[in-house]
Amino acid sequence: MARSDKRHTLGVLAEHVGGKLKGDPARSIEWVGTLEHAGPNDISFLHNARYRRQLQTTRAGAVLLSASDAEACPVDCIVVGDPYLAYARIAALIGPRRRCAPGVHPTAVVSPDAHIHPSASIGPHCVVEARVEVGAGCMIGPGSMLGQDSVLGKDCELIARVTLCQGTRIGQRALIQPGAVIGSDGFGFANEQKRWVRVPQLGCVRIGDDVEIGANTTIDRGAIEDTLIGDGVIIDNLVQIAHNVRIGDHSALAGCAAVAGSTTIGKHCVLAGQVGVSGHLEIADHVTVTGGSVVLQSIKDPGVYSSGVPLDTNQAWHRNYVRFRQLDETTRRVIALEKRMDTKKQKGSPS
Amino acid sequence: MARSDKRHTLGVLAEHVGGKLKGDPARSIEWVGTLEHAGPNDISFLHNARYRRQLQTTRAGAVLLSASDAEACPVDCIVVGDPYLAYARIAALIGPRRRCAPGVHPTAVVSPDAHIHPSASIGPHCVVEARVEVGAGCMIGPGSMLGQDSVLGKDCELIARVTLCQGTRIGQRALIQPGAVIGSDGFGFANEQKRWVRVPQLGCVRIGDDVEIGANTTIDRGAIEDTLIGDGVIIDNLVQIAHNVRIGDHSALAGCAAVAGSTTIGKHCVLAGQVGVSGHLEIADHVTVTGGSVVLQSIKDPGVYSSGVPLDTNQAWHRNYVRFRQLDETTRRVIALEKRMDTKKQKGSPS
Amino acid sequence: MARSDKRHTLGVLAEHVGGKLKGDPARSIEWVGTLEHAGPNDISFLHNARYRRQLQTTRAGAVLLSASDAEACPVDCIVVGDPYLAYARIAALIGPRRRCAPGVHPTAVVSPDAHIHPSASIGPHCVVEARVEVGAGCMIGPGSMLGQDSVLGKDCELIARVTLCQGTRIGQRALIQPGAVIGSDGFGFANEQKRWVRVPQLGCVRIGDDVEIGANTTIDRGAIEDTLIGDGVIIDNLVQIAHNVRIGDHSALAGCAAVAGSTTIGKHCVLAGQVGVSGHLEIADHVTVTGGSVVLQSIKDPGVYSSGVPLDTNQAWHRNYVRFRQLDETTRRVIALEKRMDTKKQKGSPS
Repeated sequence: MARSDKRHTLGVLAEHVGGKLKGDPARSIEWVGTLEHAGPNDISFLHNARYRRQLQTTRAGAVLLSASDAEACPVDCIVVGDPYLAYARIAALIGPRRRCAPGVHPTAVVSPDAHIHPSASIGPHCVVEARVEVGAGCMIGPGSMLGQDSVLGKDCELIARVTLCQGTRIGQRALIQPGAVIGSDGFGFANEQKRWVRVPQLGCVRIGDDVEIGANTTIDRGAIEDTLIGDGVIIDNLVQIAHNVRIGDHSALAGCAAVAGSTTIGKHCVLAGQVGVSGHLEIADHVTVTGGSVVLQSIKDPGVYSSGVPLDTNQAWHRNYVRFRQLDETTRRVIALEKRMDTKKQKGSPS
Repeated sequence: MARSDKRHTLGVLAEHVGGKLKGDPARSIEWVGTLEHAGPNDISFLHNARYRRQLQTTRAGAVLLSASDAEACPVDCIVVGDPYLAYARIAALIGPRRRCAPGVHPTAVVSPDAHIHPSASIGPHCVVEARVEVGAGCMIGPGSMLGQDSVLGKDCELIARVTLCQGTRIGQRALIQPGAVIGSDGFGFANEQKRWVRVPQLGCVRIGDDVEIGANTTIDRGAIEDTLIGDGVIIDNLVQIAHNVRIGDHSALAGCAAVAGSTTIGKHCVLAGQVGVSGHLEIADHVTVTGGSVVLQSIKDPGVYSSGVPLDTNQAWHRNYVRFRQLDETTRRVIALEKRMDTKKQKGSPS
Repeated sequence: MARSDKRHTLGVLAEHVGGKLKGDPARSIEWVGTLEHAGPNDISFLHNARYRRQLQTTRAGAVLLSASDAEACPVDCIVVGDPYLAYARIAALIGPRRRCAPGVHPTAVVSPDAHIHPSASIGPHCVVEARVEVGAGCMIGPGSMLGQDSVLGKDCELIARVTLCQGTRIGQRALIQPGAVIGSDGFGFANEQKRWVRVPQLGCVRIGDDVEIGANTTIDRGAIEDTLIGDGVIIDNLVQIAHNVRIGDHSALAGCAAVAGSTTIGKHCVLAGQVGVSGHLEIADHVTVTGGSVVLQSIKDPGVYSSGVPLDTNQAWHRNYVRFRQLDETTRRVIALEKRMDTKKQKGSPS
């Protein structure tokens, strides 16, 4: 990404993150870098233990790290409680900020009934329908579609080609990646003589503050009431959230996760990549589900949950795979063997 | 969603669904609601047994329900054979209908060789290429792309940002959600000295009548012949349908399902969420596959099919997970034990 | 797809693929067909053994096949080493080529700072931001967005509605399907007192030559360094590639595959449909992972790898499914039985 021309001294950066500087407060820092590739004007960080060996040979200008790693650091460092969090704050300071001039691009099609704050920016080829409200400081990237009656709070950013269907309400400071679709019709059908009959989807989608939504993610409108996404929820790319789902505050859904209709996910939950959750379930607060797991029943207690079987060479896997079909039978045979053994023991050794 | 100002009497609604009214035929109904939250001007329904306890305390104006629940209903009710189907019909009557003024928006780019019925609506920033046909009553939402030679029958609705690639043919009354891509190139490659050589995809996509396609779903064009989607098929969000797939009439594919190339799915099938089906398979009519299952072989008989292992706490799961690698060996050891036991028995008790 | 009016003689086609013609070199071939449906002016091919029985009754004008099938062919044929590869070359010759007139469509919004080669075509409603470079012969389909500083090499084709975010660099001859998003922000968050804090994503996406990217696929920009896609990589629809991933040359990712952050995939790898790969892993060159498998650990050796359990009728599956929870216990009971048996044997037969 194009580097900004901002420069910061190490002293200022240490103060910015409330860290303890070991080194030259006047050193100039221009950009960020990995321990492996950072140069003398870059700041790096050590957070994940697997990169610790790179600390010894780093050529970074400075490193953000924990107290226990400071001794081993061959260059200047800033000691902080959480190096990754400190890195996030410094990267936000050093990195470029997306900016767009306020106003409506002449190719955008905006309903005269829409309310767009004068400080907001509406990009080329956007469509803003009747009664839409766009808050102060919003940046609506090119090709985005804001359907009738949709509402965006202050300082939201839609990168490009985002679709908000009719009646979608989003709080402040949302960041939405390209291709996301919010408010598409839920997948609701009755069945009449083996033919599907569409159930009109009359709810909407309501989203809290400080939410992030990934590229090409889809969130369906509710059937009757609204689909709800809490405050501070972060959602990755290609995630599917069905109608009437409720996601509690500060939960995280990684790439390709899918939540079926009318399920409630608690607060501070984490669904890792490709996790699937069935419909009409209740997932408690503080539940983490590991990657690729399938959740078919409600989860009442906080904790870490998993499903799945291990990867193996195709040949070894196949031998075990076919045995899965006999698993119930095999278990019964073990029980039978135990009984025979116990019987024999009783018969054979009556003592 | 913005409520319409239509009002209906309970008598009219009962007649509309062919139900038996127990209550005041002059009662005015304005909207729909869940048993839990409906008010005195809303109609609700009881379909799923898990919501039966909410019937006792509902404040709905009326409830659609089965004969067996009528006695317990504290408010007016309409007794019908299938309450969910009756609800679908009433919601369609009460809910707002998306309407667009006929005609082509001035920002749309339409080929002079395209045939657009005068009653159809083409939204802002659409692109309609050469020889496209758009039938009577179609509503083509903003930012949609209709590639050369594509054909839409009567009364199709493309909500927004839908892409139909060259030569796609769709029947009547399709409803297509935002971001869907129909007719993208199939994933066909030959291999020459370990490099991939593209196989031109010369077929198209043909879709029947009364089909629904979800947000950001992708359907690839055929390699030689066409990819085929039958009448009345319903497809949810983020579904992948590869080249040369054929989906039989009235089948349903839920969110994130994926069907690999040249597979045929029968009629009246249901693939639940995240189901994966390998290529070159044949799935019989009336097959249901439950959520998250992987189908690696053809299915000849109707029925319900599943795969997968249960979710567990990470710790408990991991103990079983590692044992899966020994499952074949464990099974063999059980067999060996049985043989030893039988031998011993023969030796020990010669009688 | 609309057929071109090109005609070729069988003699010319045989020469084009370096094959040995058995038949009339003057025969005119106009199009391609499957063995089952090809007519006398179509050329077909036999590659997959499951279609061999169709050879006997084919009415194709000619068939591309291996030497061992030539005897059984009832019509003219061209004998080649790899019939599918030969078919790919002939289909490329016979099939229509997408062509667009060079130049910028008047509805496209192009920054005066962008560099567009005069032979390139920019379609309706595209947006080309500052400092973008578009190489010779590129075809940028309708509704595509090329963010600031993005670069496309020669002869790239973006079918429609493709988004390249800021700073994306793509080599020559890329083919990108509709709805693909390249360069969206990676899913990187620190956590402060149980709230997510965004980590600015300051890297970009760099893609080699001869790459194919499927419909609605997403590729995230790197956090610090770039996400890297090698030369000749082919990626199907709805694939998710997270930040800092590296994919080696000539690898293939089928539909709905997902690769989590900072993982490296080797060269000549194949991830089949719906495969998931965890973050921070290393996958060696020449690794194939079969459909629906989940990869939670690095793979050091080339080979074919799998995970998963077999599909079964729901009833049979459920019996085995619940036994999985006891798999560790069952295995321990087998070991215990063996010990008891051995003890008994020692006691019972001291000889």
